[in-house]
Amino acid sequence: MTFSLSLPAGPLAEAALTAVRSSESAAVANHSLRSFFFAQLLAAHEGCEQDAAYDRDLLFAATVMHDLGAGALAKGEARFEVEGADLAVAVVREHGVPEPDVDRVWEAIALHTSPGIAARRGLLAYLTQEGVGIDFGRRPEVVAVWAPPIHAAYPRLDMVRSLVGAIVERAAGCPAAGPRYSIGGELLRERRANGITDMELSAASCPWGE
Amino acid sequence: MTFSLSLPAGPLAEAALTAVRSSESAAVANHSLRSFFFAQLLAAHEGCEQDAAYDRDLLFAATVMHDLGAGALAKGEARFEVEGADLAVAVVREHGVPEPDVDRVWEAIALHTSPGIAARRGLLAYLTQEGVGIDFGRRPEVVAVWAPPIHAAYPRLDMVRSLVGAIVERAAGCPAAGPRYSIGGELLRERRANGITDMELSAASCPWGE
Repeated sequence: MTFSLSLPAGPLAEAALTAVRSSESAAVANHSLRSFFFAQLLAAHEGCEQDAAYDRDLLFAATVMHDLGAGALAKGEARFEVEGADLAVAVVREHGVPEPDVDRVWEAIALHTSPGIAARRGLLAYLTQEGVGIDFGRRPEVVAVWAPPIHAAYPRLDMVRSLVGAIVERAAGCPAAGPRYSIGGELLRERRANGITDMELSAASCPWGE
Repeated sequence: MTFSLSLPAGPLAEAALTAVRSSESAAVANHSLRSFFFAQLLAAHEGCEQDAAYDRDLLFAATVMHDLGAGALAKGEARFEVEGADLAVAVVREHGVPEPDVDRVWEAIALHTSPGIAARRGLLAYLTQEGVGIDFGRRPEVVAVWAPPIHAAYPRLDMVRSLVGAIVERAAGCPAAGPRYSIGGELLRERRANGITDMELSAASCPWGE
């Protein structure tokens, strides 16, 4: 399997990167870029790079922008997954992506915290959720060889603390941003009960460290 | 606004009812039927019964079968929302429903526990989630006049305890059925921590009683 740290070229990829780097912490932006590389490696691992549904530009858009809802562009009036999906969709639509693909990007981002559901909504949603999941320590064997250079290029910094902090802040600010049994609502409940979330606690056992 | 307790006629509606009544507790089956009436009343209240996207037969299928995944037909190997969506889709597909509508039914059921997301996936997913939500005490003003005869025809029995019990049992039996930050995983966590879930506790304050 060949692999490089090159990013897709072109106006859509540039706009996606600009949106992410101008509105997210460096830790969350790096997590988003690692998620792209991990999703791409998973596609290669599973032999689906030649599938009709595989589109590297859309995969870049969905993975790189999946946390826009936890950044400065988001209003914090709805779930961060949904605000992120709306922000990302505005970017892809501006660049002439056809509506069915726009909807796929929306679903991939809106469902990236919905285990068991995203995998049933097509290849883009599946790869997006799994790429993010690998950065949280799932399926490390799939990316073992490439994880060190990817981390060297895009360091973890305080990723989990930064991301959880942003999500909890939004959930605390507006009930619609943190309903019960959504990840935002549950992280907020954990933070209020324990001062720290289970996700922060488990970051210590992530194979990539924290 | 006119209203009656009549159910849709025809083979699809009959097959949906048979699936529900043969596999769910009476309490959960009655909840599913009330969810249909409440969703229908909400559609009337919001003036969307004439919308092109409104389809009473599909609304019946989605609302009445939304908890099949918590019943005896489900294997308990995935989230109950997803197993229920798969079971319901098998029923609607058998009755010649076109694939785009089959997918709408799948989404409506799979996303009925995803606040803030279902409402963005079209009228059927919105009405299904809200119909279920009204039976849990949301927006009681929309159905205030009709709630008593609906409850008289389809009594609540021990609905919340029965449904929560079925969901927790599945989540306890298989990690994929109860991932963290899904309703199944969180109800299981609450039950293990407190012996009772927040949903059971809040049932006492539901305007319809418990």
